[in-house]
Formats: sequence, structure tokens, C-alpha cells
Amino acid sequence: MKLRIPFETVRETVYEALLKIGLPEEKAAVCARIHTESSADGVESHGLNRIPRFAVYVRNGWVNVQADPVLVGARGAAEDYDGQLGVGVTNALFCTDRAIGLARQHGIGMCALRNTTHWMRGGTYAWRMAEAGMIGLSWINAESCMPMWGSDEKSVGNNPFCIAIPREKGPIVVDMAMSLYAYGKLGVYRLAGEQLPYPGGFDREGNLTTDPGAIEETMRILPAGYWKGSSLAIALDLAAAMISNGRSGIGQDAETGGSCGGCSQIFIAVDPYLFGDRDTLQNMLDRRVEAADSAHPIDPDRPVRCPGENTILRREDSMRRGVPVDPQIWDQILALAQGRTDIVDIASF
Amino acid sequence: MKLRIPFETVRETVYEALLKIGLPEEKAAVCARIHTESSADGVESHGLNRIPRFAVYVRNGWVNVQADPVLVGARGAAEDYDGQLGVGVTNALFCTDRAIGLARQHGIGMCALRNTTHWMRGGTYAWRMAEAGMIGLSWINAESCMPMWGSDEKSVGNNPFCIAIPREKGPIVVDMAMSLYAYGKLGVYRLAGEQLPYPGGFDREGNLTTDPGAIEETMRILPAGYWKGSSLAIALDLAAAMISNGRSGIGQDAETGGSCGGCSQIFIAVDPYLFGDRDTLQNMLDRRVEAADSAHPIDPDRPVRCPGENTILRREDSMRRGVPVDPQIWDQILALAQGRTDIVDIASF
Repeated sequence: MKLRIPFETVRETVYEALLKIGLPEEKAAVCARIHTESSADGVESHGLNRIPRFAVYVRNGWVNVQADPVLVGARGAAEDYDGQLGVGVTNALFCTDRAIGLARQHGIGMCALRNTTHWMRGGTYAWRMAEAGMIGLSWINAESCMPMWGSDEKSVGNNPFCIAIPREKGPIVVDMAMSLYAYGKLGVYRLAGEQLPYPGGFDREGNLTTDPGAIEETMRILPAGYWKGSSLAIALDLAAAMISNGRSGIGQDAETGGSCGGCSQIFIAVDPYLFGDRDTLQNMLDRRVEAADSAHPIDPDRPVRCPGENTILRREDSMRRGVPVDPQIWDQILALAQGRTDIVDIASF
Repeated sequence: MKLRIPFETVRETVYEALLKIGLPEEKAAVCARIHTESSADGVESHGLNRIPRFAVYVRNGWVNVQADPVLVGARGAAEDYDGQLGVGVTNALFCTDRAIGLARQHGIGMCALRNTTHWMRGGTYAWRMAEAGMIGLSWINAESCMPMWGSDEKSVGNNPFCIAIPREKGPIVVDMAMSLYAYGKLGVYRLAGEQLPYPGGFDREGNLTTDPGAIEETMRILPAGYWKGSSLAIALDLAAAMISNGRSGIGQDAETGGSCGGCSQIFIAVDPYLFGDRDTLQNMLDRRVEAADSAHPIDPDRPVRCPGENTILRREDSMRRGVPVDPQIWDQILALAQGRTDIVDIASF
């Protein structure tokens, strides 16, 4: 049973916890807002559930809470920054804003980020680009946590890819890990004592299973679309490392600690009004989304929705009824806010 | 049983067929080479199998074989062209080369293309970017041919997305439709009298099935990764239409004939050596690919491979043993080359 806690209470408590962990005030404030928004949007896996894990990472020295991104180079419509293993969220927000700035100037802009840490909810940066009126693409390479297709051992990251469309009636945003379920999502189901809706990986006996804990144990998560998710994952890994001149997934395996420690990220923003006027294009988006949403549903009680639409509804619900929080996670966040330093990570394997 | 026909014989026969269909010499030469290469690379579905269908489209007036792309606008690192419902392959190659040129100038370059026709094998343009030394991203929006997740009627295109990495020992290239199987692939299995390796859609009774013909009939193809393929498909549709100021998938449903008639396409090229030197980065790619390929295989006879690696092997095999061609398709191409004008499309539903 989830708790429902007012947004401001959650944000302030997380802010206190992050200060206690050692974050400077400005970074603590930004991260508290982002993590709370992620849970409010229904992405608990990378919202509040990640706070205890983040505390562990800082304690282990895997995140440098004082570091800021440093410019590596700037060429035309592209820039590259070194994240100095700083706070993943603030590093990624900085580079998102640089991509937006470059797109304003050049029509399309790209900011690469190397040697950074986990960006938490991938959709955060795509939403930000859409809210700034930009089409956004972004991705990250993670350490090896998923088998390549045809293998039974973890050999590639489940590298999330995001794409956002600035629809004024509500952005359309895709935020997808290349595994059918992100590890954070497996943790959400496990903590809730639920099975996955579809088989999400293999158990110790090599059988497909819907048991989230069994998959966390083997780390044989199923790529989304079988060979397709695996193929896209390795390509995104290579592209992120190559553009940023940063680490690939195996560089992270060998050199750094924690999930996405020292990873590479790419942010691309595109001005959508380069070749058409706003009214015409917003109209086109609305007609297209309405057509998709009115597709005949298999289950009449579950109408079709485009990605991002339900997020807005969940956000509104969270502002009314409070942010959904797993009670065990909330206890941990309260303990962190009180200065406890022995918190362990229960949300992720 | 596939025929094996020498590359040059295939290319020359297709060239004759395309001339008879009415293509100008230069376009016929380019398309003959591209379709032959696609089959040689193992992508028959969008190589030779599409020649009869292309002939039908030209006969129906759905492709204007005389048209060339016309500049809509140029802004910074971005350009937009109107394809004038011309030949999809030559239109898309033109825009690929413009994206490469813009990336040489600005570090990243984007070319949008609206009002064009089917680009055949999506990977053609990603391979071309990689062979020009660029990281490439490209995608297309198709007419409605796949159910949105949660629907039982076709309501979104299966909009292929491609990404290419310029590895000098062999490009890494992903070319993936957002359905688990492209329609062309269903046709390949049906013509060969084979079942799909994994359930690829629903039959008339609403059951998941591996029978390609049953899925072609219902058009209830399964999105790759269930909700993920569906979400990415609608986002790619919106992004392509918005950037190019072109048609969305439902614009194609309402206004134009044939698969991808009047569609929108995006080509993004990125110079991978903006922030790192070639040797270091090629080395990184090689180490990463070797690590993926040495992941422990489930079946010792089927080693893990990165996308694109097997394509090179198939290409070499086709150059040695001849290009694989379905005998029924080859008969059709021979008939077209002899000037027959009553050929129907058997490869696609």
C-alpha cells in the first residue's frame, strides 16, 4: 500500500535528506524537486526510490557532490562537457539547457556529456526540452546489466532512449529503457509484491518469468523487442561514447562504481518551427494524437493513449492526492533527513 | 528454395526493369544498385521483393519518376526538402548527403524530407552515413499499419528508426521497424512457407500467432517491446511531420496512395571526431564490439554479434555465391525487364 504525501512535504524532506548527504544547497534543491516530480509523474523507480541508493553512492565516493560540468570543446552546433563524476541530475540538466541554447542558434543543437553519473529518470531532460518548445532526443549508456541477444550473461547496458514532442496541449514523451522493464521498475513490482504483466527476463533455470526478484538475481532481463532492444542498446552505447569521447558501457564496468558511474550522455534539441508555423504544426499534432487516442480499444475501459498523456494525469492526481511513496522508502528518506548514515539500497538490486 | 544470381546480372536486370517502368536512366541506375545491394545484404524484403510493388505504385501514379527534391528552407544546421512524391530512394539519398554536408560544416546536420515516397530499406541511408564517416540517425513515418498498444485496429505506422556508427572495421548499423517484424519480413516468411521465430501479431481470433499470412490479413502486427514500440512509433511520426512540416501517418492515410506515399523523413548526421581523435575512438569501438561479441552465447554455435556485422558476412557471401532471390520475384523482375505491364505485388500484403 502506497503512502500519499503532499508534494511540498516530500520535496522539503528530500531536500533535507540531500543536504545531510552533503549536497550543496542549490544542487540539493534542484535534485529534491526533480526526484519528487518523478514520483509525482508515476516514475517512482527513478524518483524517490533512488534517494537511498544515491546516498549510498555518495557515501562510497562514486558521486562527487561538489563537481560541476567543465567544457571539453565546442564545434559549430555541438558542445561536449566533462561531468567530473558530479551529480547526474544537475549535470544532465545543464547539458539539456546547452542543447536547447544551441538549437535556438543553429536550428538543431547537440550537447554531449562524459564522465557523469546516473541521470535518474531519463524523461526529465526530454520533458524539459519539450517544455522549452523543442523536439528533444537524449540517451545514456549504462554499465553492463542486460544480456546481448543470444547471450546469457550481462553484456550491454539497457541504455534508455528518450524523445519528446512539444505539443502545447501536453508534450508527447517517450522514455524507454532497452530492456522490457528497467531494473528500477522490477524493484517497484518486487517492493509491491506483484508479478510483472509480461515475462521480463529469465530465472536461474533459464525459463522466462514474471517474477521481478528472480530476474534481478540473474540479471538476465529481456531486451524490449528481443534482438531489437539489444541492437539499439549497443548502438546507443557506441554513439554516446564516441560523440562525447567518453566511456562505453565496458569502460564503466572496468573503471567506476555504481550504476552509470562515469557514463556518457547525449542531448539533441531541434527547433520544430524552422520550416512551418506554430499554429499549423500544433494543429497537426493535435489531430494526430486525437486519431491515435480514438483507435478502437481492445478493452473499452482502457482507451488508447499516447506516451506522456497519462503522465500528465498522474501528475495532476499526485498534486491533488499527494505523491505516491513506498512506505519502506519513505522511512529511509526520513532517516536520511534526520542524519542517519547507515541507510542501504532496498529499491534496486 | 532461393535462386543465387550474380550481383551484376541482378543489377542489370533490375536496371532494365526500372527503365521499362519509366524511370530516367540515372534514377534507374541508382535504384537498381540499391535494391540489389539490399538483397545482397540479406534484406530481400526491401530489396528485390519491392520491385514488383514499386512497378505497381508507378503504374498507379503514386510515384512521380520525373520529380526531384525541391528546397523548402535552410536554417543554420538544418534543411528541409519537398520530395514531390518522387522516387523514394533517390530523394532519401539526396537528403542523406545533405545531412552529411551540414554535419561537416556544423558538427551536426539535419535534413528533413517531406512529401516523399517509400525509401525501401531504411538502413541504406544509415549505412551511407557510416560509410561517409558519420554517426547517422534516420527515421520515417508510414501510413497506419500497426495497432497502437491497447488497440486492435491499425492506427500508427511501424515507423523504422535507424542508427549507424562509423566503425572502420565494419559499421554498426541498426535498422528497425517498430513492429517486431516489418511487413516485408512477413512476406519473406510467407513466400518461403515458413513460420515466424516468435509470435509477431494476432490472427482473426485475436490470438498471438507465428503465421505470417494470418498477421498480414489482420494487420494486427505486434509492436517491438509491446507498448515501447507503439510509443516510439507515434513519437517518431509526430517528430518527422513536425520537423519537415510534412504529413503525419494519418495524413498519408487520407491523402495519398501506397505504403509511405507522401511520408516524412528525417536524416541527422554527426561528425564523431569533434571531441576525440580517430585512433582513440576507433580503438574504443573495437574493444566495445569485441567485448559484446565475446559475451557467453546461449547456443555455442550462434556467437553473439553486433548489428551490421552479419550484414557484412552476408554481403560477402552474396558476392561469392550470388544474390539470393525468391524465384517468383525473379520471374516478375524478368517480366518487367521484358516490358510486361501487368505485374502484381505478391511480396507484400
